Order: sequence, then C-alpha cells, then structure tokens
Amino acid sequence: MKARVHITLKPGVLDPQGKAILQALGHLGFDGVSDVRQGKFIEIELDETEPNTAREKLASMCEKLLANTVIEDYQIDLD
Amino acid sequence: MKARVHITLKPGVLDPQGKAILQALGHLGFDGVSDVRQGKFIEIELDETEPNTAREKLASMCEKLLANTVIEDYQIDLD
Repeated sequence: MKARVHITLKPGVLDPQGKAILQALGHLGFDGVSDVRQGKFIEIELDETEPNTAREKLASMCEKLLANTVIEDYQIDLD
Repeated sequence: MKARVHITLKPGVLDPQGKAILQALGHLGFDGVSDVRQGKFIEIELDETEPNTAREKLASMCEKLLANTVIEDYQIDLD
C-alpha cells in the first residue's frame, strides 16, 4: 500500500524558505503572488494492507520521526 | 487562487533523504516499509483567478525556479 504524507508548517510559524521563494519569484518577474509556504512531501511504500492499521502506523511514524509536531502539521493520504 | 505544487524526484534518481528516512524508521522498529521517497510541497497563493492562465504561470515558475527539471518532476493542483 502506498501512502502520501504532507508535512506543513503550522499556521503562524515563520517560513523562511517560503519567503525566499516568494522573493525569488518577484525578482524573476512573476507578480501577483501573495504568499508561498514550503512543506515536505513523503511517499511511503508499506507492506500493510489494512487501511486503519496503516494509518495508525503512519501517524506514529509522523509523531516520532517525520514531523516536528511542535511547529508542523501532518496529513496522511492512502492510495 | 491557491495552488499546490508537488516536486518529486524522477523515477530512477537516487534519493538519499528517502533512504535515510527508511533506515531511521527501521531503527525505530517500524518494519514493513519497503520504500520512502522525499519530495517538496509548495503552496502558492496567486492573485490570478483564471485557471488556465494560473496553470501556465505556475508551470513557468516550476521550470524556472521551483524544480530542477533534469532530475525532478512537478505536479500542479489548483484549489
């Protein structure tokens, strides 16, 4: 089973990478961009076939390794 | 209009970050994980309201700044 995990900064947390992209887009002449936020996207291939068990495992992976839950949110999608 | 852009390594391109996550998951006792690939996830807030124009602008941003199209693919989703 394939899982797609999005790790994003919580609203309100400063995002210097996003700000850098926003500035660079401006320098390249792309106007009309009001905000950019950068996050991580992780694709995980699991042997587990039961969706609920897979989701629990993935949540545990996010809590323990993939996300810093003080400043980041995570979202799990199963294919 | 809000756009979500996924930047992922092309198939076949070595992904050291993904491999590091895979190893770390193993060390933490998460078995049954056969592959991990890490990509980037970028949320862009655009003033543009016409979907086709927005999509063209975003593709141009990806080609010129956001993605290294030699080794990376990009996917654009509009909300």
